[in-house]
Amino acid sequence: MARKLFELCGTDPVRRFSPYCWRSRMALAHKGLEAEVVPWRFTETEALAFTGSDKVPVLVDGAKTIADSWSIAEYLEECYPEAPNLFQASPAAQRFVATWSDTVLMPALARLIVSDIPPLLDAKDRAYFVESRERRFGMKLAQVTAGREARLPEFRALLLPLRHLLRYQPFLGGAAPDYGDYCVFGTLMWPRVVSPLRLLEPDDAVHDWQERMLDLHGGLAREVPAAAP
Amino acid sequence: MARKLFELCGTDPVRRFSPYCWRSRMALAHKGLEAEVVPWRFTETEALAFTGSDKVPVLVDGAKTIADSWSIAEYLEECYPEAPNLFQASPAAQRFVATWSDTVLMPALARLIVSDIPPLLDAKDRAYFVESRERRFGMKLAQVTAGREARLPEFRALLLPLRHLLRYQPFLGGAAPDYGDYCVFGTLMWPRVVSPLRLLEPDDAVHDWQERMLDLHGGLAREVPAAAP
Repeated sequence: MARKLFELCGTDPVRRFSPYCWRSRMALAHKGLEAEVVPWRFTETEALAFTGSDKVPVLVDGAKTIADSWSIAEYLEECYPEAPNLFQASPAAQRFVATWSDTVLMPALARLIVSDIPPLLDAKDRAYFVESRERRFGMKLAQVTAGREARLPEFRALLLPLRHLLRYQPFLGGAAPDYGDYCVFGTLMWPRVVSPLRLLEPDDAVHDWQERMLDLHGGLAREVPAAAP
Repeated sequence: MARKLFELCGTDPVRRFSPYCWRSRMALAHKGLEAEVVPWRFTETEALAFTGSDKVPVLVDGAKTIADSWSIAEYLEECYPEAPNLFQASPAAQRFVATWSDTVLMPALARLIVSDIPPLLDAKDRAYFVESRERRFGMKLAQVTAGREARLPEFRALLLPLRHLLRYQPFLGGAAPDYGDYCVFGTLMWPRVVSPLRLLEPDDAVHDWQERMLDLHGGLAREVPAAAP
C-alpha cells in the first residue's frame, strides 16, 4: 500500500497508545482512507530520518511525507476535499479544541499515567523513556503518579467544558464527529491503552461520548485492547 | 430604531459589564448591525416580562424577541446570512469555546471579582446581588475574593489554551475574529469593566489579543471605561 502511518507502540505493536497518532488514524478513517500501520518505537530515530522529523505520527502518502498530527489533518483536508470534511470551517477556526487538549488534558494525564508506560516498552525504549521523563518531571515516575486515585476527581473536573457541551449535542462537531472530536478522543486513547486507571465514571456524559467514538469507523479504536480490566 | 439590545449595567448605565451581553453586542457589530442599548438592572424583571426571559441579553429585532446570547448569535447568523459570518462552520462545531468560557473562565473570574460589583449597583440591585451571590457562594463576598492577588497566577494559567493558540494565529477564528473570539472577549469584559484587578500581564499574548479585540468595530468596547487605573 502506498499510504503508511508511522505510529508509536510499545514492545507489543498492537498496543498503539500515542494520542497524536490516534488523531491521525481517526482522521484517515474519517476520510475513508486506508493506511498501513508502521509500528514505531521511541528510539527508532533512524527509521524516521527520511522524514526530517524525529517524532510520530508521520504520514507517507505516495511521494509525500507529512509529520505532525495537525499538519497531517490539514494535508488530508486539502488533498482529499471530496471526502467527508474533517473541519467544517477553516482548520484555524477549530484549533482551540486541539490547544485545549494539548495544554490542559495532556499534562494532567501525564501526571496520572506516565508510570504505566515503561512496562510496555522494550529495554532500550524503556531506558530512553524513563530517563527523559524523569528529567522532565524532576522526580521518579512512580512519584509523579503517587496518590493518583485521589487526584481523579480533579482530572474529571477538567473535562467540564466537554461535559457541558454534550448537553447540547452528541459530538464536538455537532450532530457528527469532526477533527475536534478526534483531538480529544485521541488524547483519551493514551490512558485507555496504557493504564489500568479508570479515568471516567460510567455515568459521565464524556464516557458515553467516548463509547460513541469507539464505535466509529467500524470500531477501529476499540480493536486496540484497553489496559483496564 | 427597531433593534434593541437589553444590556446589564450598574447604577451608571455606561458601565455595561455583563460578559454575555458583550458577546451579543460584539456579534451585532460583527454583522454591521446597530442596536439601541437598553440599560437593564438585575431587579427590573418587569421590564423583561414581555420577553419570557428573566435575564439579559435580550435582543428585540422588529417583531422578534430573542433571549440568551447563544440563541442571539444563532439568530443573527440565520437571519443576516449576507453579512460577515459569525461562525465559519455550523455554530455547533464551534461551541466548545463558549462552553470553555462558561465553565472554566466564568467561575474562576467570579471568585476574583464578585466583590467589585455591589458598589456599582443602586441600593435595590445591590441588595439582590449580594444576597443571591452570598447564598451561591455560602460566604460573604469579601471572603470569596480574599487574597485574590495571590490567586492571579492560577487564573492566568487557565488561559493557557488560548495563549498557546495565539502562537499560531492572531484570533480564535484564525486570521480574523469570529464568535469564538467574542465569547472569550465578552467574558473578559466583565472583569475589565468592574474590577481594579489587573488580570493580564502586559507581556501576555492574551493581553495583546485583547487589545486587538478592543480595537475592533471602531473600538466600541474600548469606549466603555475600564475599572483599572
